[in-house]
Amino acid sequence: MNIKYADRMKNMKASEIRELLKLAEKPEIISFAGGFPAAEMFPVEAMKIVAVKVLEEQGEKALQYSATEGFKPLREKIAKRMKAIGVEAGIDNVLITSGSQQGLDFAGKVFLNEGDIVITEKPSYLGAIMAFKAYSPQFVDIPMDDDGMEMDQLEEALKTKENVKFIYVIPDFQNPTGKTWSVERRKKLIELANRFDIPIVEDNPYGELRFEGERPPAVKAFDTEGRVIYLGTFSKTFCPGLRLGWTLGEGELLNKFVLVKQGSDLHTSSLSQQELNCFMEDYDMDEHIEKIKEVYRKRRDIMMKTMEETFPKSVTFVHPKGGLFTWVEMPPHMNARDVFKKAIEHNVAFVPGDSFYPNGGVHNTMRINYCTMPEDKIVEGITKLGKVLHEMI
Amino acid sequence: MNIKYADRMKNMKASEIRELLKLAEKPEIISFAGGFPAAEMFPVEAMKIVAVKVLEEQGEKALQYSATEGFKPLREKIAKRMKAIGVEAGIDNVLITSGSQQGLDFAGKVFLNEGDIVITEKPSYLGAIMAFKAYSPQFVDIPMDDDGMEMDQLEEALKTKENVKFIYVIPDFQNPTGKTWSVERRKKLIELANRFDIPIVEDNPYGELRFEGERPPAVKAFDTEGRVIYLGTFSKTFCPGLRLGWTLGEGELLNKFVLVKQGSDLHTSSLSQQELNCFMEDYDMDEHIEKIKEVYRKRRDIMMKTMEETFPKSVTFVHPKGGLFTWVEMPPHMNARDVFKKAIEHNVAFVPGDSFYPNGGVHNTMRINYCTMPEDKIVEGITKLGKVLHEMI
Repeated sequence: MNIKYADRMKNMKASEIRELLKLAEKPEIISFAGGFPAAEMFPVEAMKIVAVKVLEEQGEKALQYSATEGFKPLREKIAKRMKAIGVEAGIDNVLITSGSQQGLDFAGKVFLNEGDIVITEKPSYLGAIMAFKAYSPQFVDIPMDDDGMEMDQLEEALKTKENVKFIYVIPDFQNPTGKTWSVERRKKLIELANRFDIPIVEDNPYGELRFEGERPPAVKAFDTEGRVIYLGTFSKTFCPGLRLGWTLGEGELLNKFVLVKQGSDLHTSSLSQQELNCFMEDYDMDEHIEKIKEVYRKRRDIMMKTMEETFPKSVTFVHPKGGLFTWVEMPPHMNARDVFKKAIEHNVAFVPGDSFYPNGGVHNTMRINYCTMPEDKIVEGITKLGKVLHEMI
Repeated sequence: MNIKYADRMKNMKASEIRELLKLAEKPEIISFAGGFPAAEMFPVEAMKIVAVKVLEEQGEKALQYSATEGFKPLREKIAKRMKAIGVEAGIDNVLITSGSQQGLDFAGKVFLNEGDIVITEKPSYLGAIMAFKAYSPQFVDIPMDDDGMEMDQLEEALKTKENVKFIYVIPDFQNPTGKTWSVERRKKLIELANRFDIPIVEDNPYGELRFEGERPPAVKAFDTEGRVIYLGTFSKTFCPGLRLGWTLGEGELLNKFVLVKQGSDLHTSSLSQQELNCFMEDYDMDEHIEKIKEVYRKRRDIMMKTMEETFPKSVTFVHPKGGLFTWVEMPPHMNARDVFKKAIEHNVAFVPGDSFYPNGGVHNTMRINYCTMPEDKIVEGITKLGKVLHEMI
């Protein structure tokens, strides 16, 4: 048997993070590898109450097919929440998706012909790179400093490259680096996108998990032309297992996403949407998020402190103001995969950073999740990792 | 602003069924248009119990990210159920999807380059045509008689066409026609697929809803080479709102679907999967399906009887042995869209059949769902439709 697959399948390989996570699954491992939120923060008791209430009050509707766009009361609540980051939106601007990962897949499907260019941050989110690769694009990755993507390099790329279909950015507590864009960079991004007439896909899974300072306006807040597609999710602030996210945009552009959603899976679970909607009506979502932030802030603090105390001075790391991740840079001669192999022998896991570079070529970085392990394990794991780094440097 | 979409977006238009259903949404309409199962058959009370139990026993796990392939106990149960139609399978053969619609999208993604050929029945399922169109194929549609696809015409197509990537069939109570393939045709299909080395996508949402006679073996049951991808769903036997389906296959071919699933939405709702699994453990799924069949059988009977009594003799219709739909053929000069317009004035709705022809060109057919309306409404609606047909013939 000789099955002829689509050409795109040549680009698609199993996620390396997933493969590494299999090594990190043993119970004795202290894992900073996952992109998971802390499960002990999930509102399990509230979900029990909410699940019964939805089935009692909406039973048949919650179990039947429903509109592709999503459950209207939930879409309305999401639109309202967007005001916190300066985005004025209504029901018609919101499409419910199965996690924001699905919005990434749809962005690829809506925009990309084979060989088209996607501009990303360098590094960028592995799941987005995977989703886009299914549409066989080329990646142009633009370096970042502490304020976000370097704008002169973005401008140069927009000037010189043809067939740029969209710019993909994660401006708040970026995955993998934990960095946040300054407001100036956000405005400049819109200015360049307007000038070169290019859509933007703004992915913001972590923005609501800010431990200190004010939330900056979304890139979308500066969008006067409807060229920004904003992707949000409840995976980090509520429960990822429900697979609930949203795509926010305007008019024809959002309609394309709705069309693609219809062909892809008709709609997202009616029951899950109603459960989340009911939770947002009967409980205080912001209060729930505050509780998560409090736990994560402490875990970040203890991790930063331990890194400062135990890591070699030539190893640098990001001090994130929110989100799930920090990003570690080792001296250029070091390879994070070698460090991973050594660390796993000491029962400590993280994600080597090379998978986050769409065009590869960087080997001395690692992504570390500070949210899922309890504080004593953070101290123990980071101390061990510090020792490994000292040995290998 | 001049947004440049992917070329595929030119093929994608809003589902005409969905647009028509908007007309049929008014409460006074007797609608035979939807592809919906009867909501009064949903196990709402059991779902309440199951939802609480899952959250009590598996709380954090049911709300956390989970494996792309799906929840193992559920995959195991599905594999076992496949024995009823002659398919020997294990956990590793089952990928959980968000409805079988998602399996259709994935088939397009795994197999199709632009311009490749998909062979379908004529007519075929609109949702599949939509899903495949996102990958810009050509359709070769093969006529059907009462025993399924006409095999000489399939053989001719396989002999003469290049770049045939797969054959898509719905052998049990087909959507839209309600027809079921004979066992001989199923064997012959496999023989031809083996000879020409072409994969088959077997879509079977309705096979479990058989009112009379024995279930025939699946096409997959005759597959000795692993070239059949089988798509199943709980949307018609349980609850469509949960979006739970499965893709069954072997080895590398199934792995491609898993890879595509990972990039598309990571995994299907952990909570929904655990709820269904718990329902299947604590309740008798076959007994539940028996109850649905009893109601649907009566509705089919009353619809067939009313059609026989009220439809003009030159209008023919399929007498389905299961599933949701019957298929009506009018004399060739008649156009189902005209009939639809007239019928909706009398508050009766159905789906004009032209959307089900991937290459168009047939206008005198209609799809009628006999499952969702109560018996008195079936008599009333079909009698009215009979009158409209008499007037227009």
